[in-house]
Amino acid sequence: TRWCARITGSRLFEVLIIIVIGANAIVLGLETYPDLGHAGPLLHGLEWSFRLLFVAEITVRILAYGSRPQDFFRNGWNVFDFVVTLAVFIPVLHGDTTALRIIRIARVLRLVRFSPGLRTIVSALVRSLPGVGAFLALALVTLYVYGMAGWLIFKDHYPEEYGTIGRAVLTLFVLLSQENLPQLIEQGLAVSAWTLVYYVSYILITVNLLVNILIAVIVNSMEE
Amino acid sequence: TRWCARITGSRLFEVLIIIVIGANAIVLGLETYPDLGHAGPLLHGLEWSFRLLFVAEITVRILAYGSRPQDFFRNGWNVFDFVVTLAVFIPVLHGDTTALRIIRIARVLRLVRFSPGLRTIVSALVRSLPGVGAFLALALVTLYVYGMAGWLIFKDHYPEEYGTIGRAVLTLFVLLSQENLPQLIEQGLAVSAWTLVYYVSYILITVNLLVNILIAVIVNSMEE
Amino acid sequence: TRWCARITGSRLFEVLIIIVIGANAIVLGLETYPDLGHAGPLLHGLEWSFRLLFVAEITVRILAYGSRPQDFFRNGWNVFDFVVTLAVFIPVLHGDTTALRIIRIARVLRLVRFSPGLRTIVSALVRSLPGVGAFLALALVTLYVYGMAGWLIFKDHYPEEYGTIGRAVLTLFVLLSQENLPQLIEQGLAVSAWTLVYYVSYILITVNLLVNILIAVIVNSMEE
Amino acid sequence: TRWCARITGSRLFEVLIIIVIGANAIVLGLETYPDLGHAGPLLHGLEWSFRLLFVAEITVRILAYGSRPQDFFRNGWNVFDFVVTLAVFIPVLHGDTTALRIIRIARVLRLVRFSPGLRTIVSALVRSLPGVGAFLALALVTLYVYGMAGWLIFKDHYPEEYGTIGRAVLTLFVLLSQENLPQLIEQGLAVSAWTLVYYVSYILITVNLLVNILIAVIVNSMEE
Ligand code: NA
Ligand code: NA
Repeated sequence: TRWCARITGSRLFEVLIIIVIGANAIVLGLETYPDLGHAGPLLHGLEWSFRLLFVAEITVRILAYGSRPQDFFRNGWNVFDFVVTLAVFIPVLHGDTTALRIIRIARVLRLVRFSPGLRTIVSALVRSLPGVGAFLALALVTLYVYGMAGWLIFKDHYPEEYGTIGRAVLTLFVLLSQENLPQLIEQGLAVSAWTLVYYVSYILITVNLLVNILIAVIVNSMEE
Repeated sequence: TRWCARITGSRLFEVLIIIVIGANAIVLGLETYPDLGHAGPLLHGLEWSFRLLFVAEITVRILAYGSRPQDFFRNGWNVFDFVVTLAVFIPVLHGDTTALRIIRIARVLRLVRFSPGLRTIVSALVRSLPGVGAFLALALVTLYVYGMAGWLIFKDHYPEEYGTIGRAVLTLFVLLSQENLPQLIEQGLAVSAWTLVYYVSYILITVNLLVNILIAVIVNSMEE
Repeated sequence: TRWCARITGSRLFEVLIIIVIGANAIVLGLETYPDLGHAGPLLHGLEWSFRLLFVAEITVRILAYGSRPQDFFRNGWNVFDFVVTLAVFIPVLHGDTTALRIIRIARVLRLVRFSPGLRTIVSALVRSLPGVGAFLALALVTLYVYGMAGWLIFKDHYPEEYGTIGRAVLTLFVLLSQENLPQLIEQGLAVSAWTLVYYVSYILITVNLLVNILIAVIVNSMEE
Repeated sequence: TRWCARITGSRLFEVLIIIVIGANAIVLGLETYPDLGHAGPLLHGLEWSFRLLFVAEITVRILAYGSRPQDFFRNGWNVFDFVVTLAVFIPVLHGDTTALRIIRIARVLRLVRFSPGLRTIVSALVRSLPGVGAFLALALVTLYVYGMAGWLIFKDHYPEEYGTIGRAVLTLFVLLSQENLPQLIEQGLAVSAWTLVYYVSYILITVNLLVNILIAVIVNSMEE
């Protein structure tokens, strides 16, 4: 047990697991190429090696808890590791390659847990979410109000873009990337020159919102 | 009256109103889907519930002012609430579904007033406007001068893009999104290679202006 | 003379000039609409009013210098004002509407001088230029080296995009807006998958450069 | 020797080398224009002048080290200068114009070494790389996981965009520029409306990542 705990805490152990997860990701990627037929048995063999290595890893880490293995499951990441490591052995999944593949892709996400750098960034990203939450709410209200207005103005002229509130909000979401701006302005001008007020005000408000989200995030992260 | 004032000031009252406004927004959205025929009576019934709830809300809030109900109308938001809540009952609007719908959409904007988070952001956005006002004026002068120059250079070659000052400014506004950049440069090269000076200088100046607006907003918001 | 100096220094004088310049800009804009035939005499009359008002303005401002009118010409802006105000009366220009129009558009730029807000921004923009000068030099070196590399790789396959160093640099300048990215990557893949290294490295380097220009400008403007 | 050391350290020497490198860059650029036939001998003569000047420059700089010329090669930039200056004389390269041209283009990069401004920026850019390294790793994991998910969802419907993990990651890399956003969303809707969750979450996560990279770079550069 002490031996297991010492292994689990060692840097070498972490680096090895990161390498195995990386190799697992590469094998998964290679499998997407259909013309790798003759390499199929090799990839299959590697997958089984990964499975055994991951089971060994989990076993060592549970043993490291000594006489109280149930404590292992108190950590959310440990539960995630346990599920994705063992789920590949559930017999009913073997026919369904998609479900099996999702589990194998999920194993790649374990990388975040083992890389201290990624872990720091992910927790920083998660912490910054509430700060921008109110802005996202306002963006949603803006999308909704402009969506309803766009539906009222354009529903008969351009049903594909503005036929329902769903389509209108989707059109306005894509407009955030400004990709459809020239086409939408041309469509709008065919209806009335006043539709420019609709589009120009939308662009100014959303750019303003985006800039202020950026600033909120910058100011927050500087205060930390 | 005291009872009304206590209700108005309670968190539960605000949360309930936010939920009703949200439900009102969802019902408005659902009505844009034409194939919801059999749900029509249900949506109609909900709309009447919202109307009654909003009238009840306004009544309670006016009663909370006790013996001086006229003070209620001193607050701009209160006047807005009063108008959009009662305007749906004006008989002459019942035939005109567009006007009625605009009023019902306007009721969604009341969300900003009831959500403290949204209220803070909206007032911050409004406060940041004067700071960028001078930049917007300069952007307008830039658009105008480049628009007149573009009209002089391209009016005979590309009347659709530069035929009048209005079209030229519109073309240059869309160019801020850079969506029409490849096409405009190609058109320009067909006239003369010197038109590159026109487009490259425009891009550099406007990007420079945008970056400086961003910085002005950041520096201002940090000083607050 | 003292009377003239007092006029020149008054806020009312400045506001009036700004209004006249603005009206001048609007008249210039209206003239670009070909279907304003019947308003032609009116616009022509307004243009002559502007000319007389601007001559009056310059006269007052020169008189304000009293016994040393030559001091008026020590200020660059004054020389600019004098030239654009009087150049419209040069007889040889009357046939050439383009030259005349350029002078009349140049009069709109005088707005910057009279609006303290615009003057502050313009001088701030000019002051920030040397700070980004070195970055622009590096951007130019990057465009040049990638342009030469693109010419070596693509000159035979895509002469329109990379046939000469000029065309290659233009293609890469437009690529800064990312508008032609999907098309260029597709073209590159048709030559070799290794061309992805060319485009991905270019995108990463230029985005990195742009971000660092932004930061240099922000840090500079905060130190001021 | 002392004379050489004084030359090497003088500002005039640096400015002259910068001018020669610049002229070298212009000649290289002019050579890409096929219709400069009659100027061929002139350009060829200039190229030989540059070669001799660069050899002279290297000779002076080695001599400046006096009795210990081997110290010259302790500096990486010196080795680079030595190689690109002398490689053009390797006889075997004379037939292969591409290799020769790459060496001649590489000589332009020496500009960075001689311009103190460029040197400062380049070393600042290089220093900022480790700071964004972890973010780039996270971006890679995000591209990989979304690439695998995209392959699972779209591999049969859109093999050109998502047929292999390589194509899927390329599609998602281009999506960072948002150029293919409208087309991908339309394709996705033809499969299922749920694919919007895929694209909207991808956009939100990557924009969030980009903003946080920007902030990391800003905060780092302010702490320096
Ligand atoms: Na675009
Ligand atoms: Na774009």
